[in-house]
Amino acid sequence: MALLVVGSLAFDSIKTPSGHVDRILGGSATYFSLAASYFTQVRVVAVVGDDFTAEHEAVLTRRGVSTEGIEHARGNTFFWSGEYGENFNEAKTLTTELNVFENFRPRIPQQYLDTEFLFLANIDPVLQADVRRQMKDTRLVGGDTMNYWINRKPRELTETVKLIDLLLINDTETKMMAGDSSLPRAANKVLARGPRGLVVKHGEYGATIFFREGAFGIGTHPFRAPALPLDEVRDPTGAGDSFAGGFMGYIASQGELNREVLKRAMFYGGVMGSFAVECFGPERLTKLTREEIDARFQIFRELTHLDHEST
Amino acid sequence: MALLVVGSLAFDSIKTPSGHVDRILGGSATYFSLAASYFTQVRVVAVVGDDFTAEHEAVLTRRGVSTEGIEHARGNTFFWSGEYGENFNEAKTLTTELNVFENFRPRIPQQYLDTEFLFLANIDPVLQADVRRQMKDTRLVGGDTMNYWINRKPRELTETVKLIDLLLINDTETKMMAGDSSLPRAANKVLARGPRGLVVKHGEYGATIFFREGAFGIGTHPFRAPALPLDEVRDPTGAGDSFAGGFMGYIASQGELNREVLKRAMFYGGVMGSFAVECFGPERLTKLTREEIDARFQIFRELTHLDHEST
Repeated sequence: MALLVVGSLAFDSIKTPSGHVDRILGGSATYFSLAASYFTQVRVVAVVGDDFTAEHEAVLTRRGVSTEGIEHARGNTFFWSGEYGENFNEAKTLTTELNVFENFRPRIPQQYLDTEFLFLANIDPVLQADVRRQMKDTRLVGGDTMNYWINRKPRELTETVKLIDLLLINDTETKMMAGDSSLPRAANKVLARGPRGLVVKHGEYGATIFFREGAFGIGTHPFRAPALPLDEVRDPTGAGDSFAGGFMGYIASQGELNREVLKRAMFYGGVMGSFAVECFGPERLTKLTREEIDARFQIFRELTHLDHEST
Repeated sequence: MALLVVGSLAFDSIKTPSGHVDRILGGSATYFSLAASYFTQVRVVAVVGDDFTAEHEAVLTRRGVSTEGIEHARGNTFFWSGEYGENFNEAKTLTTELNVFENFRPRIPQQYLDTEFLFLANIDPVLQADVRRQMKDTRLVGGDTMNYWINRKPRELTETVKLIDLLLINDTETKMMAGDSSLPRAANKVLARGPRGLVVKHGEYGATIFFREGAFGIGTHPFRAPALPLDEVRDPTGAGDSFAGGFMGYIASQGELNREVLKRAMFYGGVMGSFAVECFGPERLTKLTREEIDARFQIFRELTHLDHEST
């Protein structure tokens, strides 16, 4: 089934201990839609400027991503530059030029309104809620947010979170949102605000999904997926969005939503995140095959599973 | 088969956000031997002072731990007091009184010399090496160390690490020992110095075992075991030693050493660590049953395993 993402298309300049790149295609919607494109039909709603060319758009369309929802505005596309030190968990932002993104008011094209699965990437929670309300027939809504909105728009975010079925954030954001330093306790407090599931991303340690009691009819036992121990992380930009793309893309590809589907979605999220960080920008996500993805899924299984026989 | 641990017996005063305790039984050998006692016959070599009573010794003997190797010296037992804030990963040490531990020169009793499995808890690497050399017939040696020795006695530690088959340390120690900020790369550098396996403990995120190429004849794929998401960690003291106790205890209980045994040992390590942190001091480890341990093992499996059928 189809999956719609509303987020950013951007140009990024990135410096890491492995090298640097200038003004390459980036943004949450780019990483998300490329990662999800290996699982399901993906549709993008975003805004770009005059510097976004047909060649940039082709990066998405070559992966079968529907780009009719991309709004072309006068001015430049969102630009971000940042630098990572040895600690890959946090980027040091050097420049943020919102450009056309500053006045972005997402409008969902008529032909997208029946999309079954929706992902609200990290944008203003007011806009996220507005999109959610336009999409009345959506079966399942995933969403992301960040420190900035937790601090600046806590009330608006609280309203938006009620409209999200599966929230994907990291450890720090979870603890900050809940005001609790124990992750499992913080996770339960966030779930009490509305989402049925909360995916907490732990960076190189993987991610854990926590469930609200009664949600999906599958009990409250959490589930943890690993990340791949990689000798070299070249560029962590987009890892979280790629995780979300693999996670939501796999869910959208399945007929029903049960515990096993969500568990496997966690693994596919980790798999797509592990590919994303191997190269600068989204390059690695543009030319994968489903066979490579499933081979890495098996590596994730090998990394975590006891043998079946010796239960 | 029997398992010998050489380490510290101590009294600890501990303060955490959950409360505080004064002068309770602690030390690496206490946590290790209690955790391991559910799997195999455990023998302890350590030193204590006049303040270590028959009642303290009974905490160990009631679990079937052999205490004939405990040396009684004049003076007080090793005393440590520390405090944990919201970040449970690091204790703030308030007092360290080495007391009788200062002149500890471990002597292995004659009747222990044939012990098949040995664990060198975190003590001076020179003493660790000395113990290793006394134990000529040991089949497998596990060991721990810490920042202090990595910084103060790097050359001595390098020699000791050559004598250890399975080294158990945390992320920071691994990176520090290797001088590399990438964990998988650092792990391989540490393995190049001698150990056949390296267990890196990630605190609340579990632990990963890395293998030296050709070691145990099981390839080099790492394996990751989770930690349990616990609403309340009351006292993290001894979590690493309890992990080591579960890990080495399970290995010692098995006839052969293969990949599956090591994987399950990682799970049992996590299980014993999760029990340790539920109460102050080693209390929780004194009255478990193997049934409780195996029930928690199943929770760890549920936390990480996809269903078997849908491979």
